[in-house]
Amino acid sequence: MRISVIGAGSWGSTMAKVLADSGHDVMLWVREPDLLELLREERRSYFVKSLHLPSNVALTGKLNEALEYADVIFNAVPVQYISTVFGERNLANKSIVNLSKGLEMSTHRRPSQIFESFGAKTVSTLSGPSYAEEVAREIPTSVVVAAKDIEFARFVRDLYNVKYFRVYSNDDLIGVEIAGGIKNVIAIAAGIIDGLGGWNNSKAALITRATVEMARLGVALGGKPETVAGLAGVGDLIVTCTGVYSRNRKVGEELAKKRKIDEILSSMKMVAEGVATCRAIYHLSRKLNIELPIVEQVYAVLYEEKEPKKAIEELMTRKKKDER
Amino acid sequence: MRISVIGAGSWGSTMAKVLADSGHDVMLWVREPDLLELLREERRSYFVKSLHLPSNVALTGKLNEALEYADVIFNAVPVQYISTVFGERNLANKSIVNLSKGLEMSTHRRPSQIFESFGAKTVSTLSGPSYAEEVAREIPTSVVVAAKDIEFARFVRDLYNVKYFRVYSNDDLIGVEIAGGIKNVIAIAAGIIDGLGGWNNSKAALITRATVEMARLGVALGGKPETVAGLAGVGDLIVTCTGVYSRNRKVGEELAKKRKIDEILSSMKMVAEGVATCRAIYHLSRKLNIELPIVEQVYAVLYEEKEPKKAIEELMTRKKKDER
Repeated sequence: MRISVIGAGSWGSTMAKVLADSGHDVMLWVREPDLLELLREERRSYFVKSLHLPSNVALTGKLNEALEYADVIFNAVPVQYISTVFGERNLANKSIVNLSKGLEMSTHRRPSQIFESFGAKTVSTLSGPSYAEEVAREIPTSVVVAAKDIEFARFVRDLYNVKYFRVYSNDDLIGVEIAGGIKNVIAIAAGIIDGLGGWNNSKAALITRATVEMARLGVALGGKPETVAGLAGVGDLIVTCTGVYSRNRKVGEELAKKRKIDEILSSMKMVAEGVATCRAIYHLSRKLNIELPIVEQVYAVLYEEKEPKKAIEELMTRKKKDER
Repeated sequence: MRISVIGAGSWGSTMAKVLADSGHDVMLWVREPDLLELLREERRSYFVKSLHLPSNVALTGKLNEALEYADVIFNAVPVQYISTVFGERNLANKSIVNLSKGLEMSTHRRPSQIFESFGAKTVSTLSGPSYAEEVAREIPTSVVVAAKDIEFARFVRDLYNVKYFRVYSNDDLIGVEIAGGIKNVIAIAAGIIDGLGGWNNSKAALITRATVEMARLGVALGGKPETVAGLAGVGDLIVTCTGVYSRNRKVGEELAKKRKIDEILSSMKMVAEGVATCRAIYHLSRKLNIELPIVEQVYAVLYEEKEPKKAIEELMTRKKKDER
């Protein structure tokens, strides 16, 4: 199979490796000329030190070349940039596997909705607990790929053929995308807890509570509640909120140290999806009239200068009640 | 209210502090004379360095005195020793709040079933993500207390009156006790993953998968599936599998280094409940004819000398399929 991966950040480059290891011919589109040159010379990722690109990964700086080359296009462009990058291109008759997480800030659209609006034939989203750094080192990882048409999800699942990367198929595209979006917002809250002192008890309670918010928003938009219990829900929450590599968790940690959000973001090399997605989800929840207490507190910290410690305390000291 | 706490290990001593902070008169039963003397002199826990016992915690070495003193008895004796410690005592008309997690190895009984067999009037179990070390430092913690009679669960919940320790009430006693038991077995598997190299992706997939096993066994025994999504289920799994304080996780870590289980256990000061409970749950699952893949692999490592790395690999490389 001929596959293109659009975007050579940490996750895009890693997916190129996994798909190449699975026996496909892969073309990786690299936006920045400097990065393209570096990758051509060294065949190693700038973002993921342990990642070596196999020989069956071709590199290009021309987006049209990558789009025309492939039967299946994997998107690793962050959600806030998808419209800009793909907007002028013709995606009719293209099959898309989206790898990005979040909601478009201005429109509240999920990634698959953006691709559908560009005429893509069929769209799926791959999600789950998967640090690129560990996948690159071939550490056993399990993820889920979701599409409205379960047969397309199974098709994508079966593109993978390596022992270290297991893909499960799922037909709840909405639930998987919403879970992936909220997850990065929750990670900011988890990071605040870490910054306040690494409170394991508080963080576990936060993550537990977060699954309720995921299910509430997912169901309101047409997703299935049980998706939250799976790899794209609780699985991805766990790895993002407790692991060392998460950029969104890192943002929260810095916020707890009383650094300003603009300063934090400008000092990071990579995109922290949760910041923009928080705004989109917050406004969406207002429109739908559903209560998302963690999202609301993160929004207040990011956009209304609320003190991070106060936000966490309000979450942790709610009224006595039955568990559900 | 007059409350006794039976057992002065890390969790029992910490509960004595929280209940005393809530305004109750507490009597703490200390089994070992040496420990009793130390506690009397220093008012500090041997197990939890940051724990200071408030002045309204009385200490005793006489079990009958503690049992007769109280309106409500909190049990912090590990599940494998409950029968031995309480077996000869009269618990008629006593209200019990059980704090221990696991199943009795010889009989497969849950803690509340053991207390019911001794004639206790009413029994509840308190569970959730709660490292004693953090509760002692008054770090915000949320737990659940479950009883068949929700009114008794609410009564126990309302005994707590401190900001840092939130208790939710729940009527699924079976589900909460089963989740707490399996959790310590899963923690051993998580520890093996840590010992093999701290694979975040693998561990998140393991925890996600573990919730399925919790729900399967819980439901088979009469519990509710949704309990798994709460504090006693996924919440406690997260803290135990990812935090630094878990004794069961530590056992797994040592197993991964190829140390023998007997050697590991004899070098630990505290009880690792998951080791005995794994045997009970394994045999129970055989009797009920239900499949618990993680429990089965941990059992094979603990009791059949299976290589830990092989056990994890078998869990992580299952057949391609739909997520559920």
